[in-house]
Amino acid sequence: MTTLPDLIVDPIIRAALAEDLGAAGDITSQACIPAGTQLTTVIVARREGRIAGLDCARLAFQAVGGCTYEALAADGQDVAAGAVLARISGEARAILTAERTALNFLQRLSGVATLTRTYVRAVAHTGAAITDTRKTTPGLRALEKLAVRLGGARNHRFGLNDAVLIKDNHVAACGGVGPAVRAARAAVGHLVQVEVEVDRLDQLAEALAERPDVIMLDNFSLADMAAAVAIAKGRVVLEASGGVDLSTVAAIAETGVDVISVGALTHSAPILDVGLDAV
Amino acid sequence: MTTLPDLIVDPIIRAALAEDLGAAGDITSQACIPAGTQLTTVIVARREGRIAGLDCARLAFQAVGGCTYEALAADGQDVAAGAVLARISGEARAILTAERTALNFLQRLSGVATLTRTYVRAVAHTGAAITDTRKTTPGLRALEKLAVRLGGARNHRFGLNDAVLIKDNHVAACGGVGPAVRAARAAVGHLVQVEVEVDRLDQLAEALAERPDVIMLDNFSLADMAAAVAIAKGRVVLEASGGVDLSTVAAIAETGVDVISVGALTHSAPILDVGLDAV
Amino acid sequence: MTTLPDLIVDPIIRAALAEDLGAAGDITSQACIPAGTQLTTVIVARREGRIAGLDCARLAFQAVGGCTYEALAADGQDVAAGAVLARISGEARAILTAERTALNFLQRLSGVATLTRTYVRAVAHTGAAITDTRKTTPGLRALEKLAVRLGGARNHRFGLNDAVLIKDNHVAACGGVGPAVRAARAAVGHLVQVEVEVDRLDQLAEALAERPDVIMLDNFSLADMAAAVAIAKGRVVLEASGGVDLSTVAAIAETGVDVISVGALTHSAPILDVGLDAV
Amino acid sequence: MTTLPDLIVDPIIRAALAEDLGAAGDITSQACIPAGTQLTTVIVARREGRIAGLDCARLAFQAVGGCTYEALAADGQDVAAGAVLARISGEARAILTAERTALNFLQRLSGVATLTRTYVRAVAHTGAAITDTRKTTPGLRALEKLAVRLGGARNHRFGLNDAVLIKDNHVAACGGVGPAVRAARAAVGHLVQVEVEVDRLDQLAEALAERPDVIMLDNFSLADMAAAVAIAKGRVVLEASGGVDLSTVAAIAETGVDVISVGALTHSAPILDVGLDAV
Amino acid sequence: MTTLPDLIVDPIIRAALAEDLGAAGDITSQACIPAGTQLTTVIVARREGRIAGLDCARLAFQAVGGCTYEALAADGQDVAAGAVLARISGEARAILTAERTALNFLQRLSGVATLTRTYVRAVAHTGAAITDTRKTTPGLRALEKLAVRLGGARNHRFGLNDAVLIKDNHVAACGGVGPAVRAARAAVGHLVQVEVEVDRLDQLAEALAERPDVIMLDNFSLADMAAAVAIAKGRVVLEASGGVDLSTVAAIAETGVDVISVGALTHSAPILDVGLDAV
Amino acid sequence: MTTLPDLIVDPIIRAALAEDLGAAGDITSQACIPAGTQLTTVIVARREGRIAGLDCARLAFQAVGGCTYEALAADGQDVAAGAVLARISGEARAILTAERTALNFLQRLSGVATLTRTYVRAVAHTGAAITDTRKTTPGLRALEKLAVRLGGARNHRFGLNDAVLIKDNHVAACGGVGPAVRAARAAVGHLVQVEVEVDRLDQLAEALAERPDVIMLDNFSLADMAAAVAIAKGRVVLEASGGVDLSTVAAIAETGVDVISVGALTHSAPILDVGLDAV
Repeated sequence: MTTLPDLIVDPIIRAALAEDLGAAGDITSQACIPAGTQLTTVIVARREGRIAGLDCARLAFQAVGGCTYEALAADGQDVAAGAVLARISGEARAILTAERTALNFLQRLSGVATLTRTYVRAVAHTGAAITDTRKTTPGLRALEKLAVRLGGARNHRFGLNDAVLIKDNHVAACGGVGPAVRAARAAVGHLVQVEVEVDRLDQLAEALAERPDVIMLDNFSLADMAAAVAIAKGRVVLEASGGVDLSTVAAIAETGVDVISVGALTHSAPILDVGLDAV
Repeated sequence: MTTLPDLIVDPIIRAALAEDLGAAGDITSQACIPAGTQLTTVIVARREGRIAGLDCARLAFQAVGGCTYEALAADGQDVAAGAVLARISGEARAILTAERTALNFLQRLSGVATLTRTYVRAVAHTGAAITDTRKTTPGLRALEKLAVRLGGARNHRFGLNDAVLIKDNHVAACGGVGPAVRAARAAVGHLVQVEVEVDRLDQLAEALAERPDVIMLDNFSLADMAAAVAIAKGRVVLEASGGVDLSTVAAIAETGVDVISVGALTHSAPILDVGLDAV
Repeated sequence: MTTLPDLIVDPIIRAALAEDLGAAGDITSQACIPAGTQLTTVIVARREGRIAGLDCARLAFQAVGGCTYEALAADGQDVAAGAVLARISGEARAILTAERTALNFLQRLSGVATLTRTYVRAVAHTGAAITDTRKTTPGLRALEKLAVRLGGARNHRFGLNDAVLIKDNHVAACGGVGPAVRAARAAVGHLVQVEVEVDRLDQLAEALAERPDVIMLDNFSLADMAAAVAIAKGRVVLEASGGVDLSTVAAIAETGVDVISVGALTHSAPILDVGLDAV
Repeated sequence: MTTLPDLIVDPIIRAALAEDLGAAGDITSQACIPAGTQLTTVIVARREGRIAGLDCARLAFQAVGGCTYEALAADGQDVAAGAVLARISGEARAILTAERTALNFLQRLSGVATLTRTYVRAVAHTGAAITDTRKTTPGLRALEKLAVRLGGARNHRFGLNDAVLIKDNHVAACGGVGPAVRAARAAVGHLVQVEVEVDRLDQLAEALAERPDVIMLDNFSLADMAAAVAIAKGRVVLEASGGVDLSTVAAIAETGVDVISVGALTHSAPILDVGLDAV
Repeated sequence: MTTLPDLIVDPIIRAALAEDLGAAGDITSQACIPAGTQLTTVIVARREGRIAGLDCARLAFQAVGGCTYEALAADGQDVAAGAVLARISGEARAILTAERTALNFLQRLSGVATLTRTYVRAVAHTGAAITDTRKTTPGLRALEKLAVRLGGARNHRFGLNDAVLIKDNHVAACGGVGPAVRAARAAVGHLVQVEVEVDRLDQLAEALAERPDVIMLDNFSLADMAAAVAIAKGRVVLEASGGVDLSTVAAIAETGVDVISVGALTHSAPILDVGLDAV
Repeated sequence: MTTLPDLIVDPIIRAALAEDLGAAGDITSQACIPAGTQLTTVIVARREGRIAGLDCARLAFQAVGGCTYEALAADGQDVAAGAVLARISGEARAILTAERTALNFLQRLSGVATLTRTYVRAVAHTGAAITDTRKTTPGLRALEKLAVRLGGARNHRFGLNDAVLIKDNHVAACGGVGPAVRAARAAVGHLVQVEVEVDRLDQLAEALAERPDVIMLDNFSLADMAAAVAIAKGRVVLEASGGVDLSTVAAIAETGVDVISVGALTHSAPILDVGLDAV
């Protein structure tokens, strides 16, 4: 689960390179670096963190060509500040042309993985799993969800299409939790899970009665979460959602919920500082 | 400068919707909401901030169809927490299908605009301009750089292609700052600016002698920046780069540099919390 | 569940039209039909069947333009031979240009829906559900799986990505059913189902012990299927797979299995004959 | 004529793989098969037939990478049930990831080739040629028409653009067969053939007088076809169309028509059962 | 034959606009023209000529939006210098943004049509037809071949796929003209023409014996062309090719050949000067 | 500046090949050349000129595969008539399939480079630089601007996005040259040049006062150009535009302007005749 086939990732990398190259290409390197000039560089982590996106960096250098990429670390690995992650040697023009694109992927995805790791560690003393949400960067969902997995968490839905998540508007339109869950069960195949959101503890019993696969406790207080865990008694997966941050996540996990979904993993992760240095 | 033609943005929005819809579409809304059910919703800012991405949100609802989008705020506007930004009415299925994609753009771009605004305000008492970098999200550079403009800052290069930026590796390969700047001038057209990076104050004189359009002071101390300003005497645009954050930017600006480039505007901006509420 | 957003389907329709138009367009209509010639046509079912693909036909005529499409039937409807499904009026050139593409979608998808309906009816006296497989036409999976739903059956996995299906090669590589199911559970999120294939009745107990969501009985005899149902006692969804055709499906369903997956729904459905007639 | 350049086919294969992999990839193989696990497999024909699509299968395995494809049969070859068509060795994950896509192409195209071969054999004692139609699967026309050639038949038009086919609506709009053929001749280049459809024997003389390259006898009785052959005396290519199936095709061919076009070759061919077995 | 469906042309126009807009859009109009400023402009022919590409211009303004396009001339029309071809009114920003792209298509295609017209007029006193070649601009073949038709000439092959053209290398590899023509006939369908090139008069008899549809006389002298016409006696279409320019085309046509193919129509046509003027 | 990365050019080449191959491929070579037939060919310049597009030719042969490309000349080189530019050996089918596409790029781009060289030589005795315009072929701007550089000239703007060019309509809408230049300066970043067009000498002083980077003298008489040079005294780059052809360019350059932009470089360059010969 910690890699994606190159054939899926490569078009994303090439589109990013094209975005950076425009119609004139790397005019600085073309003008200032004689063709054939050789260079050896290393990718270095400037801060401690969990690495993700090395495969993207590799594909960026490969797409530009004229240089060789040697992996010195792997996606999913924890590295210290100063760690050397890869060595790239070859045409100086090529390396400098691909540099920014390679780093843009590597910094962002490592940022997601590192923040995810922090959340995962914060709940490691509990049985709760951390998951992401659909609050991902448009166009990068596959890569960001991969980074979440590399950070040690699990993925929530990949899209509107691969699981049912019944929210308040659906319940209202459908005439109640019961009709909504039953309508969903009737419509989807046997491999699709059905999750239903409840906003108040007093809705839990009705939801439980419909035997959904997952119940989302949306913006519950800690006390209500704990009460919900006691009521559910393991008959359903309970997911806590809303208002989760690093100051609250441990206490949420300690209520006994099974899953905690955290939008910030992908919507607000700062980058991990990673750079390219000439040797 | 504060908008992009729909024909450029629309394909990005449609790709994001396709990413979220997969091959089955919004299975929850299809199953749980009767066709024809009407809904009225508003987009609400949950926090104070500078708005960007409303055009993206509009295009998302238009692409799904079956609903009407009414703008109640505009990109580039400062809004208070609780401000209503837009009203969307129509088919409930359509609105809920587009919701997440619309918000993903709006939250991210407003996050960039809001962080940018904070930097711009921090240097408002000086003559320095804030600019972004090429450390943007792959695939979203046009939109993120638009958000930077909406935040009140200016754009640095859009890519490797539209300005020359001579860095240390280029200087090394070219045999010095002088040869590098001259090679660049000889290669590019009369509408392309030439910027050269210096890492130490003692390189400034050599760089000035070549009359580049811009000199980047990379990771200079405040004292060295001030010295550089004194030496340059307005003959060239001076750009400060490296180690800029909200705790340092005002002091940097007060040295008299013309431009301060800030990677964090696009690489580490947290989202602005924006939601969709049924009325 | 019985429709897809136009924004997903429209690019597929336009690609098909482009495939048919080439670089010269409809040279016959251009040469032989004076510009502005008006025509009224109807789409007629030449055989009895279940209709799917009318939305595709509508989009084909809309993409070519110059004509109006009026629906007289709906996807998912059963129609008699001779039934009029839609009326298209306007520029004769436009209508004839879109005709073949519109019908190619409509015939194929109605063929899938009609064959699916036949399987569904064959097991209607039992509790078994019919599902499709991933043996779909490359490029048309979303539409063919929609046609299966319109035919009254359910969808199996949409791809390798949205559910775990552990087959014999996975079991072998993982060291047994137990390790394989546990590895899958550890890797995937709480919204992903885990199905495991067994090829012999004596593997069932081991599989049941791992509590997968679904067990696939691959190429079981009717007697073994019935025995499996008796053993599983409703603790797991049982899916029959392999060797299913219209001569066997009722007996398979009568064994008490929950789901029967049928590759032929999408890999070998003959078209439903549908034509376009000038009025 | 029995192959297409990889550069045309490869994008179709990659799109099909992407359709199957989604944003998470092959989650089962990732979870259950240790990286580096090796596997050797063979592609086996489960039924006797004419093979088409091996190039597609090869490209699917090559696109995923990590394995080697060795051809043991060739497109266009007749094979017995049980025949081994190819051997694929390498990373187990890679092979299982590409398996379904490779087989989906191979099964469908071999199905088309095998059904085509049956029609071709049915008329082998006559001088008639079998051709396909434009009733192909959207997106797969190039491959299905290749499969028809591999099955021993010839291709009719590839699209609306590469030959003129004047049908009843064109004749009506143009004011008769004569004006229509003359309009077409005047409009197209010297390398474009002109075919005109006649629906009744009494239209034949008028059509012949215009000297089209081909006359299509649409839904003629056998007696009228024979009469048409006698009247035309070889001055024009006569094509029989409409109501052709395996029970009628030989008799149609025996009337002396030159070409028989068969929509079923591509719109209703069942697959040829082909599987992948671990060795 | 003198138009293409918008659905084919529109993506080409949008790609051209995207090429011109880049990631920042029309920065001059954004900066200098207040939003909402209205403008009325006309497209004016600065030189006399045959117009082609007005549909492209219309689509360019429509794609940008915010303005209305009113046609005052039509593709295929001859206009005098100063003729007003269209009026565009609306948002000044929109009109100026689309201007260059619209004119780039209109100028180039009108250039092709005008040059084509000149060749057609030069042979109007003969029975010879002028055709283009495959020496078209990459990416614009459909539009350039449309412009050739608008110029009054006919199209040769659209690609390698829609007619057989046997050249010297094919003859050499196939073992002679006879085997080559027979191989082609055996391979292609009944709607594909077969043309064979001969380089010397003494090859004509052998070629005629094979009854190809067209014989290309490649780089023949006028005397040899006339001799070839006398020998062929109308049994085959004779195409003159090679060394055709405006100084030679009339004499070539007067030899009695049926078709003269002219690469210059598309590979070396100067533009027709067309401009946009504010009213 | 005299090359572009393959990753930018390759998709353009592949699209051109696909345009030429259609859905049936090279039917002549398939039919007439036995698989495996070997051929050695050379690309020969039939006229003297400056070469551009060899990289495109190389990529075309590589994309088709089955043959090897050996460069015997380089882009930017001046060659005599008869010069051998490259040798391609391998599968005859492959070479002939790629031939036309390779030559179409090579002929056109060499045509642009050669015409550019002629203009550059015509002003070599002056200090003026020749530049192109945005009057490029839609879809080929990157390649044509590369050919201009290879011809020895410089590039003007690549699009509406990378420099400000204030024309008469912008001035009118903005309320004068002064407001327009100031609005532009306020809107764009420090790396974007601002150019303003003046149509009469009496506008020059106002424009100079605003200190734009470049002033375009549009359709000035030679006398007025010389006067403008005298007035500007090197304080700004002066660009001559309008009515430039080979009969006027030297005199224009001799007025002392810095830059002369020539639309004809890309909009009306005849091809350079280049062919492929079997050895």
